[in-house]
Amino acid sequence: MNRVPDSELVFVPGGTLITPDANAGRALAFTLARHAVHNIQPDLDVLVAGRPTYSTSPDSLIAATQVVATEFATIAAANNYWR
Amino acid sequence: MNRVPDSELVFVPGGTLITPDANAGRALAFTLARHAVHNIQPDLDVLVAGRPTYSTSPDSLIAATQVVATEFATIAAANNYWR
Amino acid sequence: MNRVPDSELVFVPGGTLITPDANAGRALAFTLARHAVHNIQPDLDVLVAGRPTYSTSPDSLIAATQVVATEFATIAAANNYWR
Amino acid sequence: MNRVPDSELVFVPGGTLITPDANAGRALAFTLARHAVHNIQPDLDVLVAGRPTYSTSPDSLIAATQVVATEFATIAAANNYWR
Amino acid sequence: MNRVPDSELVFVPGGTLITPDANAGRALAFTLARHAVHNIQPDLDVLVAGRPTYSTSPDSLIAATQVVATEFATIAAANNYWR
Amino acid sequence: MNRVPDSELVFVPGGTLITPDANAGRALAFTLARHAVHNIQPDLDVLVAGRPTYSTSPDSLIAATQVVATEFATIAAANNYWR
Repeated sequence: MNRVPDSELVFVPGGTLITPDANAGRALAFTLARHAVHNIQPDLDVLVAGRPTYSTSPDSLIAATQVVATEFATIAAANNYWR
Repeated sequence: MNRVPDSELVFVPGGTLITPDANAGRALAFTLARHAVHNIQPDLDVLVAGRPTYSTSPDSLIAATQVVATEFATIAAANNYWR
Repeated sequence: MNRVPDSELVFVPGGTLITPDANAGRALAFTLARHAVHNIQPDLDVLVAGRPTYSTSPDSLIAATQVVATEFATIAAANNYWR
Repeated sequence: MNRVPDSELVFVPGGTLITPDANAGRALAFTLARHAVHNIQPDLDVLVAGRPTYSTSPDSLIAATQVVATEFATIAAANNYWR
Repeated sequence: MNRVPDSELVFVPGGTLITPDANAGRALAFTLARHAVHNIQPDLDVLVAGRPTYSTSPDSLIAATQVVATEFATIAAANNYWR
Repeated sequence: MNRVPDSELVFVPGGTLITPDANAGRALAFTLARHAVHNIQPDLDVLVAGRPTYSTSPDSLIAATQVVATEFATIAAANNYWR
């Protein structure tokens, strides 16, 4: 298997949900979602093969952003919404 | 690739979840959702090609509004619901 | 394009999430969801054409009520649940 | 149109999210979900026609219980979880 | 109709969301989800007929666990997370 | 039936949602989700048979990460976000 790099399998890079600002929090939401996929499917060839399918399907893109929105809700709460 | 403008890739435009009122908060929810799609799929041609599909499919439209509702929940909490 | 009326595009009609009671809050949840669809797809002809599809499909109806439930959660919290 | 009774269209029967106990709260969650469907599709004949489809489809049943779970989360919070 | 036993139709068995520990809370989440299905479809023969379909479909299993996760979120909050 | 090991059926391994850090909390989210599947479908042969299907389908992977995100939200709240 052509395994994704170990760095892509870290659950929470940096080990914390606390970020300096909302943009960094949003970036972390994307990272959490991506690493979650990688932990379920660590075979890079399978991931690359699936990319043309989901990245050109509006419904898949919408579903992916739903995951990001859910992760972001947690991160934003963790940071008291960077108020 | 015909890449979406850089401004469309900013995670949180303005860098904050705080908005003056509920309407602005709702607008931000749409923006967060749209920029999330753009970050996953930054190829404008692919996005434009997908538009006729999802924008005329009731199920896709419903799924898109689910994302907006989720983003809005976070933004509304961040703003103490503009009470 | 046969555009939906401007009033249907207002993100948060009345500009506030605060409502006098739970029934009004629930009505607002429906409005937020409907206006969200209209902002993504403002062409009335397309919307009218899609109505027979989703309004007779149980799965589409269930998905639509999921959106309403999510919007309502936010509105109910905003109003301290009208306790 | 064979319209559902008016009582089925009331958004929040009783006008409150407060219930005496968890069972009544759960019943209200089902009612909110059902009335939401009725408000989007008030034609009883269409609803009755769809029943054999969704009520025998495991995926539809799961999706319907997802809506109930979401409504219940709001109602439970409104009642401080009946602690 | 071969109806499920009455005990399977109780919305909240025990009448409370409060449980002694996280394991019991998780068990209650499964029960709430299962009883929700039974209240929508109380015909045991239909339920049994659907079991081979959803229990061997990864997507159905994932959707079912999404419902459990949502119910569990409510129950965990009700119990102050058994801290 | 080739049943999954008993350890895979424990609802909340360790019996608590409290974890030392965010990485451990994220690992628990994956475990809760996986054990939820196992409790609904404890036949290892069925699970193994479904793996090639869902683990190579982008939409299934996205749906699985949605469940993880939802479980993680609960666990993160339980731990006060490891602030």
